[in-house]
Amino acid sequence: MMANKAVLQIPVTRFINGTSQELNDAIAIEEPLEIRLDYGPSEFRKVQNISVTMRTPGNDAELALGFLFTEGIIKNAQDIKQVAHFFIACAENKENVIQVSLAEDIIPHLQNTERNFYTTSSCGVCGKGSINAIRTVSTFNNEVMDENSVGIDILTSLPDILSRHQKVFADTGGLHASALFSPTGDSLLVREDVGRHNALDKLIGAAIELDMLPLNQSVLLLSGRASFELVQKAAMAGINIIVAVGAPSSLAVQLAAEFNITLIGFLRGQRFNIYTAPHRIL
Amino acid sequence: MMANKAVLQIPVTRFINGTSQELNDAIAIEEPLEIRLDYGPSEFRKVQNISVTMRTPGNDAELALGFLFTEGIIKNAQDIKQVAHFFIACAENKENVIQVSLAEDIIPHLQNTERNFYTTSSCGVCGKGSINAIRTVSTFNNEVMDENSVGIDILTSLPDILSRHQKVFADTGGLHASALFSPTGDSLLVREDVGRHNALDKLIGAAIELDMLPLNQSVLLLSGRASFELVQKAAMAGINIIVAVGAPSSLAVQLAAEFNITLIGFLRGQRFNIYTAPHRIL
Repeated sequence: MMANKAVLQIPVTRFINGTSQELNDAIAIEEPLEIRLDYGPSEFRKVQNISVTMRTPGNDAELALGFLFTEGIIKNAQDIKQVAHFFIACAENKENVIQVSLAEDIIPHLQNTERNFYTTSSCGVCGKGSINAIRTVSTFNNEVMDENSVGIDILTSLPDILSRHQKVFADTGGLHASALFSPTGDSLLVREDVGRHNALDKLIGAAIELDMLPLNQSVLLLSGRASFELVQKAAMAGINIIVAVGAPSSLAVQLAAEFNITLIGFLRGQRFNIYTAPHRIL
Repeated sequence: MMANKAVLQIPVTRFINGTSQELNDAIAIEEPLEIRLDYGPSEFRKVQNISVTMRTPGNDAELALGFLFTEGIIKNAQDIKQVAHFFIACAENKENVIQVSLAEDIIPHLQNTERNFYTTSSCGVCGKGSINAIRTVSTFNNEVMDENSVGIDILTSLPDILSRHQKVFADTGGLHASALFSPTGDSLLVREDVGRHNALDKLIGAAIELDMLPLNQSVLLLSGRASFELVQKAAMAGINIIVAVGAPSSLAVQLAAEFNITLIGFLRGQRFNIYTAPHRIL
């Protein structure tokens, strides 16, 4: 616990039934991370700030890699020469800047960040436009996406497997998790963060480092709700079965339908709802 | 329900204990909203895209107003001449662009949006820097912030009062809520959204329209976790008691401590944790 960068022990006053008690409690650490991109030919090398996200420290390189990939800025791990923390003069001396250096011949797709996915379509700002914008940058086609299935027994066992792996949440109650399982229920990757989009970026970044993409032979479990942004990131990684413990949003369901992704929500005990592509559930 | 812009009825396959059933279920609507700012003297009027957020439709003017205020771009409701949906050519014809027109003599503080709060400090990217950046733009001083208190009985009754008001969540399980109460437990404002930052922006926007700021004689209840961003927005509105049903993050606690805000987490039944400024709890 002491060396865990994700957890901080702080004094707290706990009230139970009107009586108070002073104790130390664990809370999840939240700190900003600036992602910088270093790119271009050697004589015209350029460093650009791409994003600042509030994240839980740890797996920062995966987070940067997953973010750049799911935003369509880089295409694969081979684009990258080096990922390293960049130390800035600061009294707290935290590891809050990470610099991703691209290979010399790689041109990042930075137009995707200008106004991000939501408004890049000619249709302007609407759900349909947001979905079409993703279609233009997504790498994996529907054929790759389709080959996968999972049984109901496996599906309903996943939250228990996740909670055994979700160490920091157990301590703090403050982290979202993304977990990747095989269709037979083996835990492949688990990542946690105060931001659910960060947890998924870390997971996808780890999968890219392990050369696992497309993730079309796996099941993604989300500890909370399924939003458009999470389904968008999953689609970019070729994930075709998404299971959320919480509720999906309308645009998450629409995006899943358009991309032929199986989307399940409210997985609790022996019950769940299938919103799209039920043919992958056996 | 039919005319509710926040809820969509969709077909769903529900599994319970191995048996399936086809039915219609309500999900929370998520759509992009582009916030545009229209400002400058009449001969040099300029329209600028400020932000795109994924939100639940409804209370869009409040959302835009609250966002611009909590980001430090505008100082009060008097800065604004008009707020109106801007219709774009789109097959779906949705109300997904809102334009905020400032009075001619008002100069928006757009430097605050360039890289946003997290990195505007000379300290660079760290928690301390993020907190100092907020101090420079916050309108209300510690003296205004201090005069408030709430009793334990009132505090523990707030979640029940909220759930009676939180209509859409009851239908969909998919919305975050922000609620404002008087110190005697009267419900003043409740706003819901798929994004918790949007729910709070809507609430603060509504309070600005009602000329209620600073909100230093009220209690803010958050249906989920308390992150840095939510405490930052509350601080901008002069809120000095924040109560979250879920966990706080480290930076939320640090920001609350620096701004002398009472931060309570894990409010469930008769128990809760006080993280900062316990003197306001009677």
